[in-house]
Amino acid sequence: MNRRHRSACLISVLNRDKTDACLVHGESNLAYLTGHPIENGFLLVSTKGSWLVLPPMLAAGMDKWIDGIRVVPTRKWQEMIKGLIRKNKLKKVTFDPDISHPAGQTLEKMGCTPKTSPVKELRMVKNGLELADIRSACRLTVEGFGFLKGRLRIGVTEKQLADELICYFHRRHADKVAFDPIVAFGSHTAVPHHVPGPASLGKDQPVLFDIGCTVNGYRSDLTRTVFFGRMNHSFRRVYGVVQRAQRAGLERVRPGVTGGQVDASARSVIRKAGFGRFYIHNTGHGVGLDIHEGPWLRPTGRDRLASGMILTVEPGIYIPGRFGVRIEDTVLVTRTGFDILTK
Amino acid sequence: MNRRHRSACLISVLNRDKTDACLVHGESNLAYLTGHPIENGFLLVSTKGSWLVLPPMLAAGMDKWIDGIRVVPTRKWQEMIKGLIRKNKLKKVTFDPDISHPAGQTLEKMGCTPKTSPVKELRMVKNGLELADIRSACRLTVEGFGFLKGRLRIGVTEKQLADELICYFHRRHADKVAFDPIVAFGSHTAVPHHVPGPASLGKDQPVLFDIGCTVNGYRSDLTRTVFFGRMNHSFRRVYGVVQRAQRAGLERVRPGVTGGQVDASARSVIRKAGFGRFYIHNTGHGVGLDIHEGPWLRPTGRDRLASGMILTVEPGIYIPGRFGVRIEDTVLVTRTGFDILTK
Repeated sequence: MNRRHRSACLISVLNRDKTDACLVHGESNLAYLTGHPIENGFLLVSTKGSWLVLPPMLAAGMDKWIDGIRVVPTRKWQEMIKGLIRKNKLKKVTFDPDISHPAGQTLEKMGCTPKTSPVKELRMVKNGLELADIRSACRLTVEGFGFLKGRLRIGVTEKQLADELICYFHRRHADKVAFDPIVAFGSHTAVPHHVPGPASLGKDQPVLFDIGCTVNGYRSDLTRTVFFGRMNHSFRRVYGVVQRAQRAGLERVRPGVTGGQVDASARSVIRKAGFGRFYIHNTGHGVGLDIHEGPWLRPTGRDRLASGMILTVEPGIYIPGRFGVRIEDTVLVTRTGFDILTK
Repeated sequence: MNRRHRSACLISVLNRDKTDACLVHGESNLAYLTGHPIENGFLLVSTKGSWLVLPPMLAAGMDKWIDGIRVVPTRKWQEMIKGLIRKNKLKKVTFDPDISHPAGQTLEKMGCTPKTSPVKELRMVKNGLELADIRSACRLTVEGFGFLKGRLRIGVTEKQLADELICYFHRRHADKVAFDPIVAFGSHTAVPHHVPGPASLGKDQPVLFDIGCTVNGYRSDLTRTVFFGRMNHSFRRVYGVVQRAQRAGLERVRPGVTGGQVDASARSVIRKAGFGRFYIHNTGHGVGLDIHEGPWLRPTGRDRLASGMILTVEPGIYIPGRFGVRIEDTVLVTRTGFDILTK
């Protein structure tokens, strides 16, 4: 029912855009509309009907119809889609350009047009059920952070803590981790995408955790930087700047504001404090079935925030060879501002 | 040293193919040549030099040179690559077509040609160090299967066993799982890519496990179908056919044979037994830094096997609504035949 409603919304977007049909692909887009995380297949949605075209192996176990969508197993997706377009006289058909180059070329040859999928637009605003799952994932992630803090001791390795966190999430009945967790000690905190390794924790070191889990397909994202031992002056100073930057970003969050404006608010705090060149990534991103999805909070971000969106606000400062600080929360955009889900 | 040697091999392939340079992208291809699993970036390899072009965030923590490769952080990869091609007078430059459609279009506009990456060719044959990691991953996976068998009891759920296996791999110091494990009970065994759920184990049911782990980036892949309780006649019969099909496939494995020939050997056993329409996938694939890589063992597979390749042989029969059987091992192609790594 929920999914039928999503298909109906999609068709009204197609009507708005004067498009006859759109081809939906990508695991999360297909999961959103069919309830099945299909790695490899196409859903053709039109006012004349909807068809899920996929390899026989992936059709195994599915009914012939899913919420009004006809399941069409085939080894030859190109011919099947071409036939459906012709038979149903669909003139303007779009596909999301985030597809492999050969598939994109094949679709363009068929006369389809690349255009960001309207499903991505729909997915940005979450409904109550989706929000409940994200809230659960966020709650469990905050508890996971508490668990990790309690495991900090001299000699423990980054990899050990990452392993223990993964088991923690699985023991607590998460689907799985939302992404490979980051645990970084000492100068590794200066590497935003550090891979946890054999480094062991010593006295007086910064520790960065970037963690998340998945509940019913929906994700969470949380980063905390703490200091193990006696905090030094430079860490304290940088931490304060990142904290103020995050606060500035968060306070900008409300319906109607663009992703670029939130980015600018956080970034200007860091720039003014003289650390501009050490802020080497964007301020945030949407979270849902994917860990990174729209809206995008980056300098050029034109996505407008709306009530019901879920996003991260995560500025950071990374001083090469020394240390880094990132503070990240997952937040809900409310009618009047924001609500932090990872507190 | 190992990686320098790989780059040297790549350059000799470029010379053989009369190509000036190739653009390498994709996390595993880049990990193979640089030691860093880079999600988003390009390595331009040529006889005139090699450049790793990537976003500043991903360059953080890297040295300026990696094994003779110059690290070039930039926000504008298009301009950087265009400049490098022009400055070094590189005429024929190829890129792997397995790239996003917009990036492929940009590269074609620059005059680059889509052509399967020679890195994928190199990656198919493993050296001693790679083989050692795959052997470790296979050993741990076989132990994981033993662990799972010991956990079978009335009432346990698919998801519980999957969770316990993941913790088992992390406790045993695997990097992580090689893919989301499949645990299927009863009629779920008829769904090749079943997602473990709340189904609980009852008396006299088939159970399918498709599991693998990762050690130093290298993966393993193992499927076993067992029967919990008293095996019925039809399961026993189908199991026997799949076993003979796997044996027939394995016995075809040796250097010089094509992937298509191995597929045909396994497939004909199933066909002759009258289950042809229930064999809905390919017979196998290469395994390494990716869980699915060349060589491809499928009806049209023209990749020729060579000593040092690692592949799966995994026929299956899936009877909708009733049960399925798949038997899969990861094997090494030796000079005279094959060696099963998952026994």
